[in-house]
Amino acid sequence: MMNQIIQCVPNFSEGRRPEVVKAIVDTLRNIEGFVLVGAEPDADYNRTVVTLIGEPQAIIDALIPFVGKALELINMNHQSGEHPRMGAVDVIPFIPIANVTMDDCVGYANEIGRRIYDTFQIPSFLYANAATKPDRVKLPNIRKGEFEGMKDKIKDPKWTPDFGTNEIHPTFGVIGIGARIPLIAYNIDLATEDLNPAKQISRAIRFSTGGFRHVQAGPVYLDSRGHVQVTMNILDYKENPIYRILETVKMEAKRYQVDVPSCELVGLIPKQALLDSIRYYCQVHNEPFDKNMSYETMIQRSKTYMGFRDLDVLKIIEANLK
Amino acid sequence: MMNQIIQCVPNFSEGRRPEVVKAIVDTLRNIEGFVLVGAEPDADYNRTVVTLIGEPQAIIDALIPFVGKALELINMNHQSGEHPRMGAVDVIPFIPIANVTMDDCVGYANEIGRRIYDTFQIPSFLYANAATKPDRVKLPNIRKGEFEGMKDKIKDPKWTPDFGTNEIHPTFGVIGIGARIPLIAYNIDLATEDLNPAKQISRAIRFSTGGFRHVQAGPVYLDSRGHVQVTMNILDYKENPIYRILETVKMEAKRYQVDVPSCELVGLIPKQALLDSIRYYCQVHNEPFDKNMSYETMIQRSKTYMGFRDLDVLKIIEANLK
Repeated sequence: MMNQIIQCVPNFSEGRRPEVVKAIVDTLRNIEGFVLVGAEPDADYNRTVVTLIGEPQAIIDALIPFVGKALELINMNHQSGEHPRMGAVDVIPFIPIANVTMDDCVGYANEIGRRIYDTFQIPSFLYANAATKPDRVKLPNIRKGEFEGMKDKIKDPKWTPDFGTNEIHPTFGVIGIGARIPLIAYNIDLATEDLNPAKQISRAIRFSTGGFRHVQAGPVYLDSRGHVQVTMNILDYKENPIYRILETVKMEAKRYQVDVPSCELVGLIPKQALLDSIRYYCQVHNEPFDKNMSYETMIQRSKTYMGFRDLDVLKIIEANLK
Repeated sequence: MMNQIIQCVPNFSEGRRPEVVKAIVDTLRNIEGFVLVGAEPDADYNRTVVTLIGEPQAIIDALIPFVGKALELINMNHQSGEHPRMGAVDVIPFIPIANVTMDDCVGYANEIGRRIYDTFQIPSFLYANAATKPDRVKLPNIRKGEFEGMKDKIKDPKWTPDFGTNEIHPTFGVIGIGARIPLIAYNIDLATEDLNPAKQISRAIRFSTGGFRHVQAGPVYLDSRGHVQVTMNILDYKENPIYRILETVKMEAKRYQVDVPSCELVGLIPKQALLDSIRYYCQVHNEPFDKNMSYETMIQRSKTYMGFRDLDVLKIIEANLK
């Protein structure tokens, strides 16, 4: 049987105290069966995003001591930050990568939810493809009210957790556990300091104001770089390929006489998402397209065609696998 | 007080017998207070789309004899055609144009629904902005099963009509009465006989497969012209302006090395929808934009920038008003 591979991206609610971040992340280091691909603490958000790739069972087993360490070191009654959160470990999404179905990932979500409650009496809600009710599909619906509001919200029969009773854990809160397809965190640079074009272009491309169905986007000014950006999540890269969004942004930018020189990925991307867009530009330029191109060629083509900065092979999910 | 103006687009289920079409449409001719802008029978569909523009009360009053004539001349037990339908008059949508709110139009929908039932005992369902339940917002949900299925469907308490009892009219069926913003029926020509690019491009731009939120689109081959087309409804031209859809179609067409020489409107368009797109191209080309340009200039600019064929001033809703 071929290796089953998933991605798991637990987020925990500490991004300021380096020794705490280190102690929690260390529970996931050097474990047989999966790779700790990244751990990105953010002080403003007071949150750390961890990326794991590997075998489902190895990841699930390792999440128990990980959650245990967060329980030991984070007291949500004294935690604050820019990012909404409802637990010391806030979310644990499972993402199918290879030889794993979405249903398998729903199964993993259920397994870890049950084990976390049995071990620590921390309740959890299943979301995205693992959701058990329509109003739990979107994580923000579940998280609304955050840690502070969840004490009462969880007593509403509508918000009985999927694992646990009608009580939050007094210091940890609750966890959202999900199964979903990989989302792509993608940012497009605009060569201007004026936020307005980024604001208008975000409105044009994001679903909430009429744009592409699977795009969430907003404007941001990058102080360190001195220009604005359209920052986005692409929730379904198959239906909303990168090239289509990039070209639409360029088309909209023309009306402001603003250049679109570059773009960037935050976190990882499935190989197929790059290939789908490289294929578009090959077709447009009447150049041959080889779907078996090397990861190096993929990166080089992506930079040439789409202006990615800071892209390297290890951003490709599959390049992290043996 | 300024004149209140609405558009009303009743569709009736006869497009083959010219004398029947004429008799029904004639009930709407030469009436003080509104203009009969168009009546387009389609033999394949066996359906006629009527466009009225003018004062709400004049239109509402005229709809009573119009429905009466359809009741007299159409027996749905003997009607068939390509277009789904549930009544002899199938739909009556009200669209705010000037000095009228959407709430006003919801009121008109209620008024005509009540009067039609009181006069003829024909039941009706309110849809779109006039809908009284979430699953009645989309007309196809209501119409599912069509005339033939409605006999049973209407007995389900979930499908009790908004006006009338749990019985269809035996020869007329039921009517859908709605309030909605103007939709734009817009088609983009591709310079190829191959349907595949039109199919792929439709998938890229329409909501159901990930595209723009308010676009419904599909591929069609035009036998009479010898090329394919992406045919679409734009349900909200404010959030999904024409230029954005046209430029996205051009961007997608490039990968098939296919030209996009022209486009067309079916039915009418609000002035603002043309102005919004003209403004984009003026900005891109660094040309002055005058929002008070004449209708003639609007048409000429639209042809130059967007390649409209067959566009004339009377396609602009406001140009039909005094």
